[in-house]
Amino acid sequence: MCAAASVWGNNLRLSIFGESHGPAIGLVLDGLPAGEVIDENALLLQMSRRAPGRDKSSTPRKEADTPKIVSGVLNGITTGAPLCILIENTNTRSRDYGSLDRVPRPGHSDYAAYLKYAGYNDIRGGGHFSGRLTACLCAAGAICRQILFRRGIRIAGHAASIGSVQDTLFPETHIPDSLMERLSTAYFSVIDPEKEKEMRAVIEEARMALDSVGGVVECAVTGMPGGLGGPLFGGVESLLSSILFGIPAVKGVEFGAGFGTAQLHGSENNDPYRYEDGRMQIAGNKAGGILGGITTGAPILFRVALKPTPSIGREQESVDLAAKKNVALSIHGRHDPCVVPRAIPVAESAAAVAMLELLLSAPPACLQPAAKPFDTKDTEESQQPPKEEKV
Amino acid sequence: MCAAASVWGNNLRLSIFGESHGPAIGLVLDGLPAGEVIDENALLLQMSRRAPGRDKSSTPRKEADTPKIVSGVLNGITTGAPLCILIENTNTRSRDYGSLDRVPRPGHSDYAAYLKYAGYNDIRGGGHFSGRLTACLCAAGAICRQILFRRGIRIAGHAASIGSVQDTLFPETHIPDSLMERLSTAYFSVIDPEKEKEMRAVIEEARMALDSVGGVVECAVTGMPGGLGGPLFGGVESLLSSILFGIPAVKGVEFGAGFGTAQLHGSENNDPYRYEDGRMQIAGNKAGGILGGITTGAPILFRVALKPTPSIGREQESVDLAAKKNVALSIHGRHDPCVVPRAIPVAESAAAVAMLELLLSAPPACLQPAAKPFDTKDTEESQQPPKEEKV
Amino acid sequence: MCAAASVWGNNLRLSIFGESHGPAIGLVLDGLPAGEVIDENALLLQMSRRAPGRDKSSTPRKEADTPKIVSGVLNGITTGAPLCILIENTNTRSRDYGSLDRVPRPGHSDYAAYLKYAGYNDIRGGGHFSGRLTACLCAAGAICRQILFRRGIRIAGHAASIGSVQDTLFPETHIPDSLMERLSTAYFSVIDPEKEKEMRAVIEEARMALDSVGGVVECAVTGMPGGLGGPLFGGVESLLSSILFGIPAVKGVEFGAGFGTAQLHGSENNDPYRYEDGRMQIAGNKAGGILGGITTGAPILFRVALKPTPSIGREQESVDLAAKKNVALSIHGRHDPCVVPRAIPVAESAAAVAMLELLLSAPPACLQPAAKPFDTKDTEESQQPPKEEKV
Amino acid sequence: MCAAASVWGNNLRLSIFGESHGPAIGLVLDGLPAGEVIDENALLLQMSRRAPGRDKSSTPRKEADTPKIVSGVLNGITTGAPLCILIENTNTRSRDYGSLDRVPRPGHSDYAAYLKYAGYNDIRGGGHFSGRLTACLCAAGAICRQILFRRGIRIAGHAASIGSVQDTLFPETHIPDSLMERLSTAYFSVIDPEKEKEMRAVIEEARMALDSVGGVVECAVTGMPGGLGGPLFGGVESLLSSILFGIPAVKGVEFGAGFGTAQLHGSENNDPYRYEDGRMQIAGNKAGGILGGITTGAPILFRVALKPTPSIGREQESVDLAAKKNVALSIHGRHDPCVVPRAIPVAESAAAVAMLELLLSAPPACLQPAAKPFDTKDTEESQQPPKEEKV
Repeated sequence: MCAAASVWGNNLRLSIFGESHGPAIGLVLDGLPAGEVIDENALLLQMSRRAPGRDKSSTPRKEADTPKIVSGVLNGITTGAPLCILIENTNTRSRDYGSLDRVPRPGHSDYAAYLKYAGYNDIRGGGHFSGRLTACLCAAGAICRQILFRRGIRIAGHAASIGSVQDTLFPETHIPDSLMERLSTAYFSVIDPEKEKEMRAVIEEARMALDSVGGVVECAVTGMPGGLGGPLFGGVESLLSSILFGIPAVKGVEFGAGFGTAQLHGSENNDPYRYEDGRMQIAGNKAGGILGGITTGAPILFRVALKPTPSIGREQESVDLAAKKNVALSIHGRHDPCVVPRAIPVAESAAAVAMLELLLSAPPACLQPAAKPFDTKDTEESQQPPKEEKV
Repeated sequence: MCAAASVWGNNLRLSIFGESHGPAIGLVLDGLPAGEVIDENALLLQMSRRAPGRDKSSTPRKEADTPKIVSGVLNGITTGAPLCILIENTNTRSRDYGSLDRVPRPGHSDYAAYLKYAGYNDIRGGGHFSGRLTACLCAAGAICRQILFRRGIRIAGHAASIGSVQDTLFPETHIPDSLMERLSTAYFSVIDPEKEKEMRAVIEEARMALDSVGGVVECAVTGMPGGLGGPLFGGVESLLSSILFGIPAVKGVEFGAGFGTAQLHGSENNDPYRYEDGRMQIAGNKAGGILGGITTGAPILFRVALKPTPSIGREQESVDLAAKKNVALSIHGRHDPCVVPRAIPVAESAAAVAMLELLLSAPPACLQPAAKPFDTKDTEESQQPPKEEKV
Repeated sequence: MCAAASVWGNNLRLSIFGESHGPAIGLVLDGLPAGEVIDENALLLQMSRRAPGRDKSSTPRKEADTPKIVSGVLNGITTGAPLCILIENTNTRSRDYGSLDRVPRPGHSDYAAYLKYAGYNDIRGGGHFSGRLTACLCAAGAICRQILFRRGIRIAGHAASIGSVQDTLFPETHIPDSLMERLSTAYFSVIDPEKEKEMRAVIEEARMALDSVGGVVECAVTGMPGGLGGPLFGGVESLLSSILFGIPAVKGVEFGAGFGTAQLHGSENNDPYRYEDGRMQIAGNKAGGILGGITTGAPILFRVALKPTPSIGREQESVDLAAKKNVALSIHGRHDPCVVPRAIPVAESAAAVAMLELLLSAPPACLQPAAKPFDTKDTEESQQPPKEEKV
Repeated sequence: MCAAASVWGNNLRLSIFGESHGPAIGLVLDGLPAGEVIDENALLLQMSRRAPGRDKSSTPRKEADTPKIVSGVLNGITTGAPLCILIENTNTRSRDYGSLDRVPRPGHSDYAAYLKYAGYNDIRGGGHFSGRLTACLCAAGAICRQILFRRGIRIAGHAASIGSVQDTLFPETHIPDSLMERLSTAYFSVIDPEKEKEMRAVIEEARMALDSVGGVVECAVTGMPGGLGGPLFGGVESLLSSILFGIPAVKGVEFGAGFGTAQLHGSENNDPYRYEDGRMQIAGNKAGGILGGITTGAPILFRVALKPTPSIGREQESVDLAAKKNVALSIHGRHDPCVVPRAIPVAESAAAVAMLELLLSAPPACLQPAAKPFDTKDTEESQQPPKEEKV
C-alpha cells in the first residue's frame, strides 16, 4: 500500500493526476514491457465505453475524452519508458462553485476531503475525487489489456445487477471467448440481452424521481496462468481489492462465491479436482480462481458493489459549515442516475492493471524452480486420506 | 502492494513468517511509536480468543500459543525498534504427510501452492498457508490496539452470521463503548447473546455431518479521527481490504451498506449532515465511516465473508497428481468446522494494524494545513443549491 | 526501492515521465501537503538555473523549459491532490537517428538500454535517459523547497570541484543563511567567487579539445530537525542516495567526511558534544548531520561525484551492433562539456524532495512519544564512563 | 524506500530485528525462490567471517553467532515461504548501562536516537543500532549468494584501504573466478596478500593508542546479466546504495571510477566497445558495470567508505543530557578498533541481497520483448557519426 493516494502498484506503477475542472487529467504507467504494439483504436474504444453521453442512460453531455499519449510509445510501440497519457478537459462550463465548500453534498467526498485538506481541495466538479478520474484508469487498463490479450488473457464484465434487476452470472468454468469478446466491447454489457431493457427502465425511473440507483458489476478474467500471487497479504484478492476499492462508489468486493460462501457448507463450497481427458480440471469455481491467494488457472471471478450516485436532484439535509447551521440542498445540473454501465469498463480496467502487475511479479525464467519429483511412495498409500492436525 | 507475499504496510510494516509444523511462527512489526507500554496480559487475552481448543465449537486441542517478545520492547515499553514476537509450535504430532503433496485437498491452497512453488512448499498442516499463521496477525493486532486504545480508538467484531443464523448488526452510529469492550474481549462475540446458542448448534450440526460452515464477521472501529486516508488507491477501503483479504478464508469485504448499497437509491444511501447541539453530526452510516476513501469521523464499519473450512471429513473428489488419476479423499484428524468465532479477533487485529498504519500516515504537525477561511460570500447565496457538471 | 524505474518515494511520491524528443516531459508529485502557496517565479528561477544556454559554459541553445502546472494547484495554492507539471519540448530539430540504435555511444546508456529494452527504447536524444529529464526533478524540487523554506529549511549546493579546480567546502557548522541564499539562486554556484573563472577555463579547455570534464557538487541542508530517519535501511543516507544516484552521471555519494573518513582516526572523526550558552552543540560535523541514519540537527552535508559528459566530439571506439563490427564514432552536435554547474540545482532539488519525504515520514503529533524522564541515578555515577561489550 | 526503518526491498523483502543485548537478533527474507538448496555450512562460513573474535585484529570475544533457521526451509531446501533466521545473543554480560542514556557517545547513534525515540530506545550495547545487527545482513546475504552462485554470479570484496594502507584494486575486467573465490571465503580479504600485515599493524597501532581507524571496502559482482535495473530512481546504483548505506559506519558509496571520475575527461572515462573474437566487449570499466542505471554485463564494481569505530578508549568531550553539563567520557570495554575486515562479508552480503532483488525484478519470460530487428539502412550510413541535440 502506498501512503500517497493516487499511486498504485509495485512492478507496474500507475500514477493518476488531475481534477475534473482543471486543464487536463492523466496518468503515468511505469514498468510496461517494451516492444508492445499499442492500438490507439482499442484505447479509444475502451475510453468511449466509459465516456458519458454515449446513450440515454448516462449523462446528457457528450465528451471527447480523447487520450493523448505523451511518452513511452514510439511509432506505436512501447519503449519501456513510463507511458503518460493526457486527457484534456474540454467540456467544463465556468461558473460559481462558491457555496460548495460550505455545504457538503451527502454521500460525496466533500466533507471528508474538507477534513483532510482543511478546505484547500479543489471542489469544482469533485476535483480529484471526480468520477471523471476513472477515465485515467480506463486508459491504463486499455493499454494493459492489449498486452494481456496477446498472452491469451481476456477480461470482461457486465452489469450483474442494477437495483433489483439481476443479470445472469458468468458460468463458473468454461467461459466462451465469444462472450468475453462481446461483453468487453459493449456499451451496456449484460450477459442476458433481455435484461438491458429492464435495467434501463430502473435507471430511467430513478432519473424521473430525481434519484439514483446502485448495482453490481461482475468481472471475469480468463487465461491467467496458475501459480501467481501468494499467501497472506501477497494474495490476488488483496491485490485486486486494493485497486478495485480505488474506484469511487465501490463499497464491496467479493471473489467467487463471495458473501454467498458464508452460507455454504464446505462440501458445497470446495471445488472438486478431476482428471478429464488426461487433464487436471477444477469442477466448479466457488473459489473464483484463487486459493490461498494464488491463481489456480480457473477463471478469476469477482464482483464489485457500486453505491447509487450521491448527486441527486432531490432535496437533502446538509449543513452550512461556515454558518454552522442546517440547510436544505438540491443538486442541480447533469448527473448520472446510475454509474453501473459506465463502471463496467472501469472495473475491467482495474483488473487489467492488476493482472499485468501480477504477471510482472512472476519470477524470471532463471529463478523459476524446476518441478520437484513426487515422493516415490506407493501410489496405493497415497490414496490413504491425509490427516491434518494443526489449525 | 508488496510483491513479497507476507509483508504488509508502509509506515508500519508487518512481516509474518513460519509454518504450521516448523519450530515456530512469528512476526516483525516495524515502525511502532516508541514509549508505548505493552500489556502482555492484553496480548495473551487476544491470542487466546483466537487459539483453538477454547471451547467445544472449535478444534479439540488446547494449544499454548504463548507469544515471546524477542525485540522492540524494553521493561515493558516499546523502544521504537522492530518488535519481533515468536510463537513456538508445541503441539505438532510427527507423522507421515507423504501423500498430501500428490492429492491436493479441494478448497485448500494445496494445488495453487503446488503450481507456484513447484512442489517445494511445506505441506505439513498447510505450512505457511495454515490458519495458524493468523495467530501472528492476532499478536500484531493486540500490540497495535493497545496503542490505539490510549488515543480513544476501539475495535470490536462479532459473528454477524454463521450459516443462516444472523446476529444483530452494529448500530450505524453511537456505538456504546461498553458494547465495544464486551465484544472485543469475548470468546464467541455476538451482539445478541441469544444467537450464540443457535450458532453453536449450526456448527455442531456441520461437525456431526463431517462438514463445515461459513459465516460473516462484522467489525466496528470507533474513535478514529476524520480526514485520514485519501482518494483513489490511497483510500481506507483499499488499505483495509488489502490486509483483510490476507486472512485465509476471506472471500468478500464490504464497507457500510456494502453490497446492500447496490439495491438502494441515492436518497436512501446518502447519510445526511446535521448540526445537533452545535456539533456536526452524520445521521446514518451507510458509508461505513468512509467517503472518498477518507474517514469522516463516524464509526468505520465493515464485514468480511468467511468460507466454510475446506478440511472436511466427508469424502471428496480429488486427484493423485503423481499417478494422474482421480482419487477419493477424506480428511481425517482434528479440524474446525467453523472458523468464524476464532476469526473475529483476527479481523479486529487486521483492522488494528491498518488503523495504526493510517494514523502513522497522517502528516506531522508542521505539515498540517491550517483551516482555509471560508469565502466571504453571502450566506443566503451559499444556500443556493450547488450545481455540478462534470462526471 | 520501487521496481518501477521512474518513481521514487513513499509518503511523497515522485513520478517522472517523458523523452527528450517526445512532445513533453513531466512529473507527478503526490502526497504534498494542502494549503501551500506555490510561487511560480521561484519555480521558474530554479528551472532556469538548470536550463541549457544560460551562459557560455553550457550548451549553446536557449531552451524555454517553461513548466505548466496541470493539476494539484488552485489559485496558486496546493490542493493536496497530485501535482502534475508538464514541460513541452520545443527545441527539437527533426533529423535522422537511424544509426544510433546500432552504434552505442561509449559511456552512455545506449548499450545497456539496448539490452534491457531489446532495441525498443527511444534513442532520439537519449530518450528517457536524457539529462533533460532532470528538468522534472528540478521542478519537483522547486515545489518542495518552497514548502521546506517556510519551515526554516534551506538547501544549497555549489561546484566543489570541476576537474582539478576545487572550491572552498561548506563550513561544517554554522552555515550562514546568506550563503545558502546566494548559492541556491546563482547560475554557477561557488562558495569562493574566484573559482568560477578557473572552473570555466577548465570547461572551455575541455570543449576546445572536443572533450568533457567531470566534477563534484556539494550540498548542505540547514534547519532540518533532529530525530528524522532511522536505523539500517531507513537511514537518511539510504534515502538521499537512492534519489541522488537517480541523477544521470552521478557515480558517487558521500556524507560528511565521506571517503575522507576512511583515513581518519575515531578521535578525529567523532564530533564532540558540548553545552554552550545552555544549548547542546555538536562541535564539528564529520557525520554530515546524520548518526545512526538519523538527523542530529546539524547541517546535512553531502557530495556527489559527476562523471564527464559521455558525449564528446573526439573519435571513440564503438561497434555496429547490426553489422557486428568495430566502427569509429564521433558525436557531433551541441553538447555540454561539463554538467556540474547545471547539476547543482538538480542535486539540491533531489535533496529537497528527499527532505520533504523525510518530514512527511515523521509521526503525527498524537504518536510522538513524550520524553522519557532520565533515570534518577546519582549524577556523579552518570559521569562514570559507560562500558560497552557487544559488537 | 520504506518508511519503516529495518525493512528493505521489493520483490525480495528483508526485515531485520533485534537488539544487541536482547534475547536474539534475526531476519526474515521473503520472496526467495522455492526449490533452492541451502548449504548451512556455507551460511556458517559467511557468518564466521563477520563474527568478532576470529583473529587478533577484532574484538577479543569469540561469539557463537549460530544462525537457527526457523522457517522457509524444509529438508535443506527453500519452500518459497518467508525464511526466518534467529541468532541468539549468548555472550552478553549483565551490567549497568544507567548513564549511557544521559551521556551520548560522540560519533555513535546515541544522541540522534535519543531525539527520535525520546529516550525509549534500548541503549544497551547500541541496541538495534549495534554493529551486531550486521550479522543478520550477513546471514541473508549468505542465503542469497548460494542462489546467485548457481546462476554463475559471484560476489567478493576486500579491504581496499585501512587508514593510509592501500590494497591493489580489482582489475576492471576479467576478474578471475579464483580471485573471487579466495576473497569471498577469507577472514581478512586482501587482493595483495602483502598488505594484510601492514593493515594489521595500522589497526594494532590504533588499538594501542586507544583509538580506531577507518577504511574502504571494494566489492565486485561478476556474472550478472546485462539489462537489469533502469533509468532514474530504478537504477542499480540507487538500489545498491540504499542497502549499503544501511550498514552502520558507511559514509560513502561509489561505483566504478566513482569520485575519481570527477577528475577525468570524457575521453578517459568512456569505456570503449569492441568486437573481439566475434563477441562484444567493453574495454575498461570506469562505469563499474552500470550505465544509465542498467547493468552492462561487465563486473559491477563499488566501494564503500567506513568510518573509524566511534567507540574509543580515549577521553572525549560529551555532555550529561540530564544534568545539562559537559562531561568527559572514556569508553571502556571490548571494542573493535577497525571494522573494515569484518565489514567485507557484510558489504558482499548487502550486494548479494540487492543482486537477487535485481534478478527477481526482471520480467518473466512471457513479458520479455523479442529483439527488435535493426533498421535496414545501409551499413555505410550507419557508420556516419550520430548527432545529438537535446540535453
